[in-house]
Amino acid sequence: MVQEITEVTVRDVRFPTSLEQHGSDAMHTDPDYSVAYVVIHTDTGEKGFGLTFTVGRGTEIVVCAVQALSTLVVGKSLQEIVGDFRGFYRLLTSDGQMRWIGPEKGVIQLATAAILNAVWDLWARTEGKPLWKLLVDMDPEQMVSCIDFRYISDALTEQEALDILVKGREGKAEREAQMLQDGYPAYTTSCAWIGFSDQQLTQLCSEALSSGWSRFKVKVGANLEDDRRRCALVRKMIGPDNTLMMDANQRWDVGEAVRWVSSLAEFKPLWIEEPTSPDDVLGHAAISKALAPLGIGVATGEQCHNRVMFKQFLQASALQFVQIDSCRVGSVNENLAVMLMAHKFQVPVCPHAGGVGLCELVQHLILFDYICVSTDLNNRMCEYVDHLHEHFTCPVVIHNAHYLPPKAPGYSCEMLEASVQKYQFPDGEVWRKIQAEEQEST
Amino acid sequence: MVQEITEVTVRDVRFPTSLEQHGSDAMHTDPDYSVAYVVIHTDTGEKGFGLTFTVGRGTEIVVCAVQALSTLVVGKSLQEIVGDFRGFYRLLTSDGQMRWIGPEKGVIQLATAAILNAVWDLWARTEGKPLWKLLVDMDPEQMVSCIDFRYISDALTEQEALDILVKGREGKAEREAQMLQDGYPAYTTSCAWIGFSDQQLTQLCSEALSSGWSRFKVKVGANLEDDRRRCALVRKMIGPDNTLMMDANQRWDVGEAVRWVSSLAEFKPLWIEEPTSPDDVLGHAAISKALAPLGIGVATGEQCHNRVMFKQFLQASALQFVQIDSCRVGSVNENLAVMLMAHKFQVPVCPHAGGVGLCELVQHLILFDYICVSTDLNNRMCEYVDHLHEHFTCPVVIHNAHYLPPKAPGYSCEMLEASVQKYQFPDGEVWRKIQAEEQEST
Repeated sequence: MVQEITEVTVRDVRFPTSLEQHGSDAMHTDPDYSVAYVVIHTDTGEKGFGLTFTVGRGTEIVVCAVQALSTLVVGKSLQEIVGDFRGFYRLLTSDGQMRWIGPEKGVIQLATAAILNAVWDLWARTEGKPLWKLLVDMDPEQMVSCIDFRYISDALTEQEALDILVKGREGKAEREAQMLQDGYPAYTTSCAWIGFSDQQLTQLCSEALSSGWSRFKVKVGANLEDDRRRCALVRKMIGPDNTLMMDANQRWDVGEAVRWVSSLAEFKPLWIEEPTSPDDVLGHAAISKALAPLGIGVATGEQCHNRVMFKQFLQASALQFVQIDSCRVGSVNENLAVMLMAHKFQVPVCPHAGGVGLCELVQHLILFDYICVSTDLNNRMCEYVDHLHEHFTCPVVIHNAHYLPPKAPGYSCEMLEASVQKYQFPDGEVWRKIQAEEQEST
Repeated sequence: MVQEITEVTVRDVRFPTSLEQHGSDAMHTDPDYSVAYVVIHTDTGEKGFGLTFTVGRGTEIVVCAVQALSTLVVGKSLQEIVGDFRGFYRLLTSDGQMRWIGPEKGVIQLATAAILNAVWDLWARTEGKPLWKLLVDMDPEQMVSCIDFRYISDALTEQEALDILVKGREGKAEREAQMLQDGYPAYTTSCAWIGFSDQQLTQLCSEALSSGWSRFKVKVGANLEDDRRRCALVRKMIGPDNTLMMDANQRWDVGEAVRWVSSLAEFKPLWIEEPTSPDDVLGHAAISKALAPLGIGVATGEQCHNRVMFKQFLQASALQFVQIDSCRVGSVNENLAVMLMAHKFQVPVCPHAGGVGLCELVQHLILFDYICVSTDLNNRMCEYVDHLHEHFTCPVVIHNAHYLPPKAPGYSCEMLEASVQKYQFPDGEVWRKIQAEEQEST
């Protein structure tokens, strides 16, 4: 049966998280967690749901980009797309005119991700499988045909990718059973946003410990004394055997990063995340080299905009943890390339999540990574942030600090229609109320 | 006198250049040269004109981004902005919410450039000087205060920048007089777009030679046999002493680039431009190393999205010619940083131009570079493309293959209002006619 795509709709949905400082960090002080929410409609009535994550203002620009790219999608059938997924990927990312305003970066790449996420959701639903299972069951040849190797063949050839996937078949059934039983290990970022008070931090850590969490991330980078106090507090709460990570959200220059992190070394972080500009491969390499003697790794990726950047981070030994993101790069297609390169370079993948729907999406990718690529859990874990899941039809299920594999067909990012309507910007009920309050107070 | 910015308007203006294959290359096969055209209005009636260049579809996305950023501009005065230009730059590029959809790259960076270009135009007009002269006369301290050194301090400190500018004062008056008399050397890209026939190519080369041109760029990368034939033709036309450059517009992977260019080496190109992904610093470094024994340099920059990327290209010896662009990075502010870094690393700046208005804009920057920074013309030249100048109120003046310094106050990118209205997309006369013809033919 052929399913023709008849329409692509996109809406601007924003949650006023800045009101309570959820998601605040050294660079994003007042985020309103948001999405450009895409629905692909087909002539059979089946739909595909996709999104890309944003933090408030500017979401309308991504919406505009989705609308522009939609003209390349409408009229195609799902079967035509997945029959030459590499070609379709190239069509979206290398349009002879729109390529100029990227290429493969920023707004146009976020929009590409939202659309492709919806295509993958549609494919998985059509096959009646959760996305991770679609990937796990996929023939290596077909999987490789979804990847655009342009600009990465000097680091990973198509044949090498195929070899990795064929090798990953060994023991696949056992690892799948293991995941279905135990789930994939997670860490929490919910305890220590930069806008939280010490009291909030203490309470949230205490609650997380009693729920079985053993890995904690703290936001740093705004003020060194604050960082020292907060890291000391968290380390004391969690004890020496649990894992602490630090995240600076790009706050520093290269030399500054080395000095600042060195003076937090006594709190024994596993990694420092985003120490400087996400574009600075050589800077991250210098920081990695300087921090290695202290036993601190460098993690980055949530703002690494495409496979060419990840390739260089790996080639230059500029990171020790690869943080893939389900919306920053070109969806599953490009993340497959990144996971395969990470495997070749023997660097663990520890996905970025949180935001809106990022946990729902990326859990599928990391399950696939473990079952079919890395086959390893050492030094690997997936970020978890405990908010906004209630707006999804199939929210993540966390048990004992592990992600349990989703069972419903698709890519888990269908939102409740009531939530979309309520939080739609600027016309939804929540935003009309906020605007009315703002007008009253002025 | 304080000038308050009361309004920022932006329009989508597109020229149907794809109809005649002007601007065609290996990656952009059907460009409609376009701009997001910005006008800053002030309460004194003085206006600032700015733009960013695009190639057709997607311009509406950049327009949307300009509108979003405009909220940060309206209500400010010119004096407040230029009194803390670094702070204003940071305000635009690091908005706590909009930063996420860049940062400092792609659509949001192009929109930032358009707005800042208009601010610089307004400043120069207010001072009654062409922009290049405003820069040449500017105090080094004030100039340095326009630059955001975040993420580049490991390559260029504020003090180093200041030292370069102070040193550049020696002989400044002589170089300014020299430029006013002779102009800045240019090369032409107008003869050999990839969509042009051999006959067109021969005729255009012949005409260019008789107009005094001695430096020619050929588009390559679509087909090796075509490239060999076209390059042989051009080299034969221009003779052994004139300069030939080649431009692949990102067509190749790293290994492929080395092989392809090696087989064009007999035509003695000075540089190969954009051999691979504009994001691939390490790839360009590998290509540079492989081609150095053949005497061929690597040039890139027109899609290099910010100072952090240029920093790495310089640190890694990944380019031998820095091609700044007046619209891709954050306007004059960020190009000052790039020119100063290029000087520190002793790599010549050879600006990218063409498009719509890029020649008009970038001539100001390269005049400043020569008079105050590089003080050198060796291996330096500015791109020139002979089209669409007729839509500007003060088009570039080329004499004997040199750019003559503009004399009118401002940054030379004010367009004729009649042109803007005629080519406005989709409502202008030209586009209404094209749409009517398209409808007729279907």
